[in-house]
Amino acid sequence: MLFAVRMDVSVPQDMDAQAKAELLAAEKDYSQDLQRKGEWQSIWRCVGEYANISIFDVAGNERLHEILWGLPLFPYMTMDITPLAEHPSDISLD
Amino acid sequence: MLFAVRMDVSVPQDMDAQAKAELLAAEKDYSQDLQRKGEWQSIWRCVGEYANISIFDVAGNERLHEILWGLPLFPYMTMDITPLAEHPSDISLD
Amino acid sequence: MLFAVRMDVSVPQDMDAQAKAELLAAEKDYSQDLQRKGEWQSIWRCVGEYANISIFDVAGNERLHEILWGLPLFPYMTMDITPLAEHPSDISLD
Amino acid sequence: MLFAVRMDVSVPQDMDAQAKAELLAAEKDYSQDLQRKGEWQSIWRCVGEYANISIFDVAGNERLHEILWGLPLFPYMTMDITPLAEHPSDISLD
Amino acid sequence: MLFAVRMDVSVPQDMDAQAKAELLAAEKDYSQDLQRKGEWQSIWRCVGEYANISIFDVAGNERLHEILWGLPLFPYMTMDITPLAEHPSDISLD
Amino acid sequence: MLFAVRMDVSVPQDMDAQAKAELLAAEKDYSQDLQRKGEWQSIWRCVGEYANISIFDVAGNERLHEILWGLPLFPYMTMDITPLAEHPSDISLD
Amino acid sequence: MLFAVRMDVSVPQDMDAQAKAELLAAEKDYSQDLQRKGEWQSIWRCVGEYANISIFDVAGNERLHEILWGLPLFPYMTMDITPLAEHPSDISLD
Amino acid sequence: MLFAVRMDVSVPQDMDAQAKAELLAAEKDYSQDLQRKGEWQSIWRCVGEYANISIFDVAGNERLHEILWGLPLFPYMTMDITPLAEHPSDISLD
Amino acid sequence: MLFAVRMDVSVPQDMDAQAKAELLAAEKDYSQDLQRKGEWQSIWRCVGEYANISIFDVAGNERLHEILWGLPLFPYMTMDITPLAEHPSDISLD
Amino acid sequence: MLFAVRMDVSVPQDMDAQAKAELLAAEKDYSQDLQRKGEWQSIWRCVGEYANISIFDVAGNERLHEILWGLPLFPYMTMDITPLAEHPSDISLD
Repeated sequence: MLFAVRMDVSVPQDMDAQAKAELLAAEKDYSQDLQRKGEWQSIWRCVGEYANISIFDVAGNERLHEILWGLPLFPYMTMDITPLAEHPSDISLD
Repeated sequence: MLFAVRMDVSVPQDMDAQAKAELLAAEKDYSQDLQRKGEWQSIWRCVGEYANISIFDVAGNERLHEILWGLPLFPYMTMDITPLAEHPSDISLD
Repeated sequence: MLFAVRMDVSVPQDMDAQAKAELLAAEKDYSQDLQRKGEWQSIWRCVGEYANISIFDVAGNERLHEILWGLPLFPYMTMDITPLAEHPSDISLD
Repeated sequence: MLFAVRMDVSVPQDMDAQAKAELLAAEKDYSQDLQRKGEWQSIWRCVGEYANISIFDVAGNERLHEILWGLPLFPYMTMDITPLAEHPSDISLD
Repeated sequence: MLFAVRMDVSVPQDMDAQAKAELLAAEKDYSQDLQRKGEWQSIWRCVGEYANISIFDVAGNERLHEILWGLPLFPYMTMDITPLAEHPSDISLD
Repeated sequence: MLFAVRMDVSVPQDMDAQAKAELLAAEKDYSQDLQRKGEWQSIWRCVGEYANISIFDVAGNERLHEILWGLPLFPYMTMDITPLAEHPSDISLD
Repeated sequence: MLFAVRMDVSVPQDMDAQAKAELLAAEKDYSQDLQRKGEWQSIWRCVGEYANISIFDVAGNERLHEILWGLPLFPYMTMDITPLAEHPSDISLD
Repeated sequence: MLFAVRMDVSVPQDMDAQAKAELLAAEKDYSQDLQRKGEWQSIWRCVGEYANISIFDVAGNERLHEILWGLPLFPYMTMDITPLAEHPSDISLD
Repeated sequence: MLFAVRMDVSVPQDMDAQAKAELLAAEKDYSQDLQRKGEWQSIWRCVGEYANISIFDVAGNERLHEILWGLPLFPYMTMDITPLAEHPSDISLD
Repeated sequence: MLFAVRMDVSVPQDMDAQAKAELLAAEKDYSQDLQRKGEWQSIWRCVGEYANISIFDVAGNERLHEILWGLPLFPYMTMDITPLAEHPSDISLD
């Protein structure tokens, strides 16, 4: 099941540099692990913004919540979640 | 070059049924042709809304505008355009 | 899988009375059929507004979209969809 | 009498971990006590957000205010309150 | 139980003058009847706007909905409903 | 002359408890004094929110500003001010 | 007593030209009459918009409402009303 | 050339009292100097808000920016700038 | 003096094709005439939207208003006007 | 390829003066270097605001993101990005 998620990140400017580096590294590992599993299907940077648009392919709501809630950067994120369905024009469905 | 585009559609309720059917058929052909060409990379329906989120892979701004402006449903659409860039966590870039 | 959906209805004031009555009757039948099937778990009227908040328990995004897209009043509705997950405080999960 | 309440939580990131753990435990006890009493009828997590949608079944405005104002997390919450009424399509009323 | 309700009115400009006059007369009668019953406690005009702020003192949500839904002008209104509770500073409670 | 004023309060969470208690006591005294004078005609708590809706009956803009600007909690408040006029349906005017 | 009022005008595009000309003439007369009386103290056009910002000097809320409600263009206007008070820096008060 | 400017002020609550007093005094001198020069034509307090609406009569954009950017309170202000033009109904133009 | 203006166009879908063609031709002539005069310095299409961002270099507010108010498409436009000033980093000023 | 970018800057008021001066100097050098390269085509100050509107002429999304993400002031900026295309009325295209 597919979801589009826009994540806007706002890390406190006064965060300790070391802590921030570790946080970002953990975020990257976390994301890449899920990408390898195929649950985090796509991730793109929104040009000029500390934000991304991602497509998730997950079992359902519970799993998506579990993934997003577990993001190391979650406390610093604003999320916009759009559940997706097949589009009648989508040729990949033919 | 990638763009995420959300298209919200609002077709006048009093549109002639025949005209509407032709319009939607034209829209579907137009979209599927671009999907086959690879420019319209993905299209998903936003659950419960007459809207879609699409990913375009185009040469640049001019081409994206040409595509969107040429949509049969364009006059009935509200667009939200997000230029995309590669995300540092994207494993497909490794 | 649970979704909260707020539906705001705006039927054209100049709609033919007979057509409107049939539309509303169809909407009621459609909803009650889904309620009996257990997919439309709850429906409440938002006080003072032509709107409702509903809880759906469905297989997934596709089914929710199918249900909402099929609402007789769909063309006259604005939807706000919130995918739900279990809350850690929910005693019904104990 | 029913109310739908969306609660968005924003706990200061620099809150002492111990204090936060106690606060959350108190919040859970407070909520579960009201759930057992039947006043807090339902609570769902909004997927991917530190927010919930709850349905309250209370005597009236005063009681709802008393409950919400008394939430341990109240100082860190933004509330959206929708008074609910019976929906004419609700089969549970038949 | 008290509710503050802001009603913004937008009557179609091309409405037949006679029909409009009857509609407004019916609205006035409807409101004044409820004022005499004490349910519609206060009604003020928002300066410079076709809107009012009203205070209702009703049995509960159901009754408020019944009243608002029954307003002759309801189809032309946008409502903003705020459930009210006693304020700790209110001297009328001493 | 009547004004409806919605006051949303946001007191810093890290304010010294003693200072906060004194501030709130001063706010209560200030409000109740004006209520006794009849200028602060009504005050209700917005259910579930640290906010109130108040009706002021004052000589004019200057006096209203003087009152609001003088509120001990003023620095922590967001105000929404609606000047009111008599409503043609208001039976209290007959 | 002073009020700042922003008026955004939206006249139906399909209004009969003659009727529109008469309406605008009536609006101009109405405004200029009040300007000569000193109640409509200032009126400026918002550059590039069918809108104006005006300053009214009136007896109070009732009079302002009477003036605005009586504007020939009132049915086609959206109003934003700001009650004004003396500013401590205003040298005209010295 | 005229501009309407709304300035909303938000001074940090924990600013040193002495520094704040000096800042406000500097702001007042700065404003009154410009008022005497005729560039700052009018300044009114928005009732119940730490905000003002001002009318500037300046040579052009550069000068307006220079004035606003130079305000001692500028770092604590949110500005809304409306360029003004003559209104066809303005009797002062006859 | 420079202004950035965003113009969003919304032409009624049921406008007569011939009238619309003439209107757009008039708009193009009007714009190109001003571009040749140097007052309309730049005009770009916002990708995927019936909107443009333009830079005007005009004598002042009155002239800008005169230009915008005179646009054949003005009745179908929503404008967002930003007065511009020189930026301290602008190398063209060295 | 052209992009319009509005950048709103909000530097913490308690930033060390020296650090701030260096930050702003770095920002100026960074911008002017790109202006000399022709990628940062135009930069204007929004009158009365700590914001600018800039036009970028870059190879594509990736390059624009690289530039914006690299701005020394980026952590203190809110960006609004509008991809631009040629406007059919633009005489510079003839």
